Amino acid sequence: MRISKLSELAGLPVGTVKFYLRTGLLHPGRATSATQAQYNDSHVERLKLIRALLEVGRLPLADIQRVFDAMDLPTQDPAKSVALVQQAISPEVDHVEDEDLTRARTLVDDLGWSIAQDSPHLPPLAQALHALDNVGQSATRERLKVYAEAASHVARNDVDVISDADDVDKPVVAAISSAIYESLFAALHRLAVENQTARRGSRIPGPRVSIPQA
Amino acid sequence: MRISKLSELAGLPVGTVKFYLRTGLLHPGRATSATQAQYNDSHVERLKLIRALLEVGRLPLADIQRVFDAMDLPTQDPAKSVALVQQAISPEVDHVEDEDLTRARTLVDDLGWSIAQDSPHLPPLAQALHALDNVGQSATRERLKVYAEAASHVARNDVDVISDADDVDKPVVAAISSAIYESLFAALHRLAVENQTARRGSRIPGPRVSIPQA
Repeated sequence: MRISKLSELAGLPVGTVKFYLRTGLLHPGRATSATQAQYNDSHVERLKLIRALLEVGRLPLADIQRVFDAMDLPTQDPAKSVALVQQAISPEVDHVEDEDLTRARTLVDDLGWSIAQDSPHLPPLAQALHALDNVGQSATRERLKVYAEAASHVARNDVDVISDADDVDKPVVAAISSAIYESLFAALHRLAVENQTARRGSRIPGPRVSIPQA
Repeated sequence: MRISKLSELAGLPVGTVKFYLRTGLLHPGRATSATQAQYNDSHVERLKLIRALLEVGRLPLADIQRVFDAMDLPTQDPAKSVALVQQAISPEVDHVEDEDLTRARTLVDDLGWSIAQDSPHLPPLAQALHALDNVGQSATRERLKVYAEAASHVARNDVDVISDADDVDKPVVAAISSAIYESLFAALHRLAVENQTARRGSRIPGPRVSIPQA
């Protein structure tokens, strides 16, 4: 297909598609002349992924590039590809205090979680703990436990979905989509707060959602 | 205190503090001459909040301004202030299809949640559902249920903390900090996925975290 058709299918202006081609975020089409190229479904899919990560996952373009770099690495090991993508999705943190990193480490150790010493997910946790201290809303041990329980509950399901994927590419796309699932969670969380607030305000005890123990 | 001291206490360059003053994100100090002003603890606190929302909550400056506008509205009703802040923290969504909005509405109705017809949190949910369809990772009913259970678990605790706050300003700051708690959740979620993946890869059945029913 021509670039105009590609633009239409992806729901993006031609100028934007050209920009992604120029920056390398979108792979080139098959050149048919000096100024024209043909594109296929792989281009449509890639553009839909860019849109989803940008508009819903709210990842900056540089992080999306890192995700694609990880995704396109030739590895025969799906677990390794998934780990690389998860690392690329994780926000880069400029600076964390050693003290905060130790707190983050202690927390996951207390939870009994198997976390690599150099896990890319520890600095963002340390940064969040530090920020909460700074605004006078330090996370209590109890509150952290509640958050960890919820995170575990969701993660079990996510890993089920990733490991049930039945072809080589799927685990990677499932890993990428976790950036979008995080936005889904944030929206559900705000709605759940609205629900709880409404129920308590009106003094009507609502049905409680119970979480089955796995 | 002078601007140099304020800059030091907030951990921000003087130029950045001046930029926030110019844009109105930071309230003016008490002028002591044509070129100098005195600042106090309220300025330090506001700057810490800006940093936390920017660096950890990853809110754009325009949204932080909306949060402060909501926070500074003179209302005697803490519940109203909290609702306004929560609305300001919620990401603005350019466009959602009616069909997706209906799906979001149906989902919260199925959950039995009390959600206002015009809740600002429904469009972000609709947008996330749409994006997942677009990348071929549609959320199944079962997966949405798992996410909703986790969101409910966390929200119950959040609303407890907000309603336990013992002075007029605290509920609002607690509501603002939910943007930071969302980043904390995202970090814990990535760690929990790492933990689950490690355990399954190594075939060591790990301890399961159980969520107590409230």
